[in-house]
Amino acid sequence: MSDDPSPHPFDAAIALQAGGDGLFRGCTHAAYGNMVGPYGGTTAAQMLNAVLRHPQRLGLPLALTVNYAGPVAEGQFDIQARPARTNRNTQHWLLEMRQGDEICTTASAVFGTRRPTWGATEVRMPQVPPACALPRSPGFVAWMNQYDRRAIEGASPDLKLEQEQSGSRSSLWVRDEPPRPLDYAALVALADVFFPRIFLRRGRWTPAGSVSITTYLHADEAELGAQSSRHVLAIADAQRYAGGWFDQSAQVWGDAGVLLASSHQLVYFKG
Amino acid sequence: MSDDPSPHPFDAAIALQAGGDGLFRGCTHAAYGNMVGPYGGTTAAQMLNAVLRHPQRLGLPLALTVNYAGPVAEGQFDIQARPARTNRNTQHWLLEMRQGDEICTTASAVFGTRRPTWGATEVRMPQVPPACALPRSPGFVAWMNQYDRRAIEGASPDLKLEQEQSGSRSSLWVRDEPPRPLDYAALVALADVFFPRIFLRRGRWTPAGSVSITTYLHADEAELGAQSSRHVLAIADAQRYAGGWFDQSAQVWGDAGVLLASSHQLVYFKG
Repeated sequence: MSDDPSPHPFDAAIALQAGGDGLFRGCTHAAYGNMVGPYGGTTAAQMLNAVLRHPQRLGLPLALTVNYAGPVAEGQFDIQARPARTNRNTQHWLLEMRQGDEICTTASAVFGTRRPTWGATEVRMPQVPPACALPRSPGFVAWMNQYDRRAIEGASPDLKLEQEQSGSRSSLWVRDEPPRPLDYAALVALADVFFPRIFLRRGRWTPAGSVSITTYLHADEAELGAQSSRHVLAIADAQRYAGGWFDQSAQVWGDAGVLLASSHQLVYFKG
Repeated sequence: MSDDPSPHPFDAAIALQAGGDGLFRGCTHAAYGNMVGPYGGTTAAQMLNAVLRHPQRLGLPLALTVNYAGPVAEGQFDIQARPARTNRNTQHWLLEMRQGDEICTTASAVFGTRRPTWGATEVRMPQVPPACALPRSPGFVAWMNQYDRRAIEGASPDLKLEQEQSGSRSSLWVRDEPPRPLDYAALVALADVFFPRIFLRRGRWTPAGSVSITTYLHADEAELGAQSSRHVLAIADAQRYAGGWFDQSAQVWGDAGVLLASSHQLVYFKG
């Protein structure tokens, strides 16, 4: 997509220049900026894209773990992607993102083949109003404006009210803005589309950030194709807050009721 | 613990010989054998132990992702542990386990400091009968006999009946056998103590195995110490089965109602 004269901003943001031997150079994109540094979802998609573009890659993404080891500065970065092990049905990858001499992000990815098997989904997609019936939520930082977000419950709290809540659940319809057909890179970015659950619980802003995120890609290519560029339903909650850390879990549903991805992360918070 | 003349079998299984420069040598332990190769929970604990024993380690475990890249053969293995990034409050590790020239397991770990903060647990520990009121579940492979397991619901199905079930939930009380005070290595092993959810759903055995597991360690040292060697409550379920893969989630609760760990894994299954 990097040769397209006017690529979608997301494609521009995850574009990589192959340097050979699994080395890829990319650059942060202002449109996906967060309060400090880039949106973590874009960083995850960049890591995944390095594997997707690697000449030795076999199969498609099944799992991705991204560790936000240190701040990513605006500007260039290098990703080293290495196939740690290639089996008949799975391939395991290790990745490092560097700026200068420092590792800022690490990742591991499992790629593999999907085969026709028995299947079932044990969790239920909640009954919610359609995206078109809901207003678009405002964005507070650059990357949020790259998504059309329609809050259903647990919208970003009014931080001036400092109103504590009993739960951490948010659900929203969301798609890339402008619309873009869903693919695995967009899906791993979407899995991180939520503000930290601590904001909602405590009703106020506090320093917080993802430290490690793991996303399981359930959707096959046909399901991604069927979803295309329509809104997906994204749901997040938390299990335990303690000692400056909490875990946040998410589901990403297609609008036809297919669980496209499940995701989990460890988040740092202060105070 | 390796100098102890009669260590607990778990300590013997995760014992490592430091070779310098982050290289550790270990050996699989027959008592923790699975149907083929070692129990994955022991492998995870060995990876964690390499960081715990590393001279540059700072803080305590917060998150561990272990990728089961290929089979681990009975016998010796080498773990290379490398601090990818050290910050003030967090340290990120990358690990590789090799046998001969092949990588059989990779891992990443986040270590860090826990500070006194606001805290909350949003999930509830279910009301269940105490461990002492339940019979010990039989073990079918070696490693299972290293745990005292007391099934509450979703016990290992009678595989001869081939009785499909509508859900994948299991809960059990479990502790090391013989009893051993809980620590982080034991906790990451316990997070994988469940048989694959597909056995329960389909009521029959099928080839299946963990491919990637991520465990978030919520407990601080005081909570581990308070739990000591008593049974913990372990609960597992699944979200979606498709294309030969499913995701399995688990909680490990202390008997006083503290969520000690949450864990998620991607599992391969056939048919």
